[in-house]
Amino acid sequence: MTETVIQYVLRRLDEIGVGAIFGVPGDFAFSTTYGVGELSAINAIAGSYAENLPLFHLTGMPTMPVQATHALVHHTLGNGEFDRFKNMAEWVVCGSAIMTPQTVAFETERLIAAALYHRRPVYMAFPSDLANRPVAGRAQPHEPPFSNPDSLARAVDAIHRSVDNAATACVLPGLLAARLRLRDDVQRFVDASGLPFATMFADKSILDEQQPGYIGMYDGRLMDEDVRAFVESCDHVVCIGTMMTDFNSGAFTARLEPTRTTTIGHHHCKVGNDVYTDVEMRDVLIELTSRVAKRSRHQPLRRESPGEPVGAGNDPISAEALYPRWERFFQPGDIIIAETGTVSMGLGFAHLPRGAEFHNQTLWGSIGWATPASFGAAVAQPKSRILLITGEGSHQLTAQEISQFARRGLRPIIFVLNNNGYLIERLLCKDPDISYNDIAHWNYTDLPHALGAEDWYTARTTTCGELDQAMAMATEVETAAYIEVVTDTYAASRLALKLGDNQASLYNA
Amino acid sequence: MTETVIQYVLRRLDEIGVGAIFGVPGDFAFSTTYGVGELSAINAIAGSYAENLPLFHLTGMPTMPVQATHALVHHTLGNGEFDRFKNMAEWVVCGSAIMTPQTVAFETERLIAAALYHRRPVYMAFPSDLANRPVAGRAQPHEPPFSNPDSLARAVDAIHRSVDNAATACVLPGLLAARLRLRDDVQRFVDASGLPFATMFADKSILDEQQPGYIGMYDGRLMDEDVRAFVESCDHVVCIGTMMTDFNSGAFTARLEPTRTTTIGHHHCKVGNDVYTDVEMRDVLIELTSRVAKRSRHQPLRRESPGEPVGAGNDPISAEALYPRWERFFQPGDIIIAETGTVSMGLGFAHLPRGAEFHNQTLWGSIGWATPASFGAAVAQPKSRILLITGEGSHQLTAQEISQFARRGLRPIIFVLNNNGYLIERLLCKDPDISYNDIAHWNYTDLPHALGAEDWYTARTTTCGELDQAMAMATEVETAAYIEVVTDTYAASRLALKLGDNQASLYNA
Repeated sequence: MTETVIQYVLRRLDEIGVGAIFGVPGDFAFSTTYGVGELSAINAIAGSYAENLPLFHLTGMPTMPVQATHALVHHTLGNGEFDRFKNMAEWVVCGSAIMTPQTVAFETERLIAAALYHRRPVYMAFPSDLANRPVAGRAQPHEPPFSNPDSLARAVDAIHRSVDNAATACVLPGLLAARLRLRDDVQRFVDASGLPFATMFADKSILDEQQPGYIGMYDGRLMDEDVRAFVESCDHVVCIGTMMTDFNSGAFTARLEPTRTTTIGHHHCKVGNDVYTDVEMRDVLIELTSRVAKRSRHQPLRRESPGEPVGAGNDPISAEALYPRWERFFQPGDIIIAETGTVSMGLGFAHLPRGAEFHNQTLWGSIGWATPASFGAAVAQPKSRILLITGEGSHQLTAQEISQFARRGLRPIIFVLNNNGYLIERLLCKDPDISYNDIAHWNYTDLPHALGAEDWYTARTTTCGELDQAMAMATEVETAAYIEVVTDTYAASRLALKLGDNQASLYNA
Repeated sequence: MTETVIQYVLRRLDEIGVGAIFGVPGDFAFSTTYGVGELSAINAIAGSYAENLPLFHLTGMPTMPVQATHALVHHTLGNGEFDRFKNMAEWVVCGSAIMTPQTVAFETERLIAAALYHRRPVYMAFPSDLANRPVAGRAQPHEPPFSNPDSLARAVDAIHRSVDNAATACVLPGLLAARLRLRDDVQRFVDASGLPFATMFADKSILDEQQPGYIGMYDGRLMDEDVRAFVESCDHVVCIGTMMTDFNSGAFTARLEPTRTTTIGHHHCKVGNDVYTDVEMRDVLIELTSRVAKRSRHQPLRRESPGEPVGAGNDPISAEALYPRWERFFQPGDIIIAETGTVSMGLGFAHLPRGAEFHNQTLWGSIGWATPASFGAAVAQPKSRILLITGEGSHQLTAQEISQFARRGLRPIIFVLNNNGYLIERLLCKDPDISYNDIAHWNYTDLPHALGAEDWYTARTTTCGELDQAMAMATEVETAAYIEVVTDTYAASRLALKLGDNQASLYNA
């Protein structure tokens, strides 16, 4: 039997490794529905664009006769127009199409190629009368694009020469390399070159932090001064898929001298002031690795970390008590989802065990992201230990998603930091006590049960002793765990405090 | 002291009667923040557009130096572009502006005039370095626009003649008239003319349903046949701000003969096949009321209603048990917020007591709307009894908003219909049991306490007896009430069943 329009798309997505579909319920629909569903999802689509995730957004649409007659139907603006939501989506995707039996084959192949090449979301709309029609067209999958050999040779020569001529050099591996699934290629370049590496905030954990070449987090003048001094003193710095954003650069206090910097981008390189286009990151890494001379290991720096945990027994949970405890709680292979805010800013400087992954939506920074993101991680990696660490203010936006863990029998460990409001906002605004930063008081530990997570271990901790006990239990129990950590309103991580002190630099670039 | 940019806007909004500001937390911000906050809100903005609500969307933006230097800052797509979200917003607003000290005065006056004239949302963006600068410009509020006197005279002549010549006639008063705050003007026209009126779904309760001229709900061939037969047999029908949408027209089964219909629109009239522009609804109503001849009252029809409640004691809660009970539960002056779905379709045919208001997001139909909308209603009308009646599937999308009632000491009565999934979707899709329509099982009555609503009366009802008792308690107690109503998976209201039977007409127009 001939495939239908929707079957064609779903088969092809399955073939390229799309393993899960998340939906917003509604009629007209598969993934999200027209108008109301897709606009509910559009923040997440934009976040995927900012964060270089090749997400496929499938949305239902009213039937072609409804569109042709400009009928006034629900989930529309009531103006007989049906293009507006696609027009809106186009600002936050790298390609879009309305799927018909005749176009679905070639449009699907184009959109798959575009999503994978640009690492951005794409938008596919399905008129509901066409989705189940047989496909009336054929197309072949596109081959992945490749570099121009001459451009590649010139770019790699230039990088090789710059690194070779440098008495001291280091690498800044970036999140984009991980998004492109080039972690192993970056690691091979680091191994072959013997160069030390630091990471910026968004890039944390893209290479294992337990290897000797790792020198710590580079965050401009805000945090570890030894790392900053070393990186900025190098004769050459090789950035691989990094971005000099506000939160990556210590509120723009990082200073990489352009003439002493190579940037290996997604589809281009910049070596000093020279730009090389027509070159793909993967090809550059492979060529470079094959040619780079290995140098002896740099003397390791003393890495800054949250330090030793303080406090015990009935002591309140200060920032100095909390962040080192989390650092020690982490185990090899953990997937740690840290919500934007004072929590992620504290955890970003924890030294992670082997194979642990740290995820934070550093650029897009849409609070509420972490709770459903941790569910997504659990679905994708059901055998890994999933840790969600979120401030309570952000958690309130999407807390109901924890019911999805229970529904699927997944067992995350969730820490909810209750500091009585939006702490990072308090630190970043003129009047920290303004009611705008207050939130509703919830009984967090009652929440899992209310949301159908019947057997979860829950604990409310207000002292170091209680926190220690809850952490021990979370490690022991066979169930998921949900731990509220109550701190003082102003118990902020160090970076959060420093950002509060550096607002002029943060906001004025 | 000179007003600042933001003070100017807030003062002017206060002066025109904007009494409440709802926000999404974030930096750069007042109401919603750049990118992440505004896209979280954009579904609600689009809903306000569809539903003719003049909402003012104030959003923060990065500073002008950040924008000018294309700096890579958080809450952006990381491409140095700062216009994309405004471009997205422009598809769902009737006007937008970026506010500077020099432009804020005249742009504010323009956007207030546009929002009030078009009854659509507007978008105001505030670069965060300019919001607190002193205003450097002056502007006068604009007068409301008015009709062209000649056009008005011609339009009213034509309507008057058509109504006067009709042996039988009736009125269909519409939601838009209520949005324009012309309820009283519509009532005066109905009183002066002595014409009977019916309402369509979105228009329910815009005039009091207890008056003798009310003949019931007109929903094409799907529901009350007496009403349909009467309306469609009239020599003339006067529609005032109605829309012939799918859910207003009984899935397009309503048949109003254009030559026998007058439509009094927002800025135009249509009498038979003649269109009159340059005329405002309010002016038309006032002129028409002063000239229309009063006719004697039409013999009232027997109104269809959900009927007498069935069931008692341990009987399960069937649709026939439930909807009549809700109808009897309503009191004069209640504000009833009904979520889209089988619930609203059942409640839409309840006969409401004097002064009761029924709100449903009929056109936009974004599930999850009702829970925060009921909070908005409670803030706007703190002395009224607020009833939220929602399906549990929709409620799960925004359930955390009930914590806002508790935070403000508001006392809604909330009914959560638990029918084990998305019933209306089950009725509208090929395979009703498909897992797509299932949802997580929650312990709903634990939810208010978990969300900080400590003292609410809660009850889970699975039988008619329990429901009767809970309804009695909800009326008696001094606190808010939260009642879960458990029914069979397929206990659907009549209209919901009929829509399921009329999908061809619903979806193909």
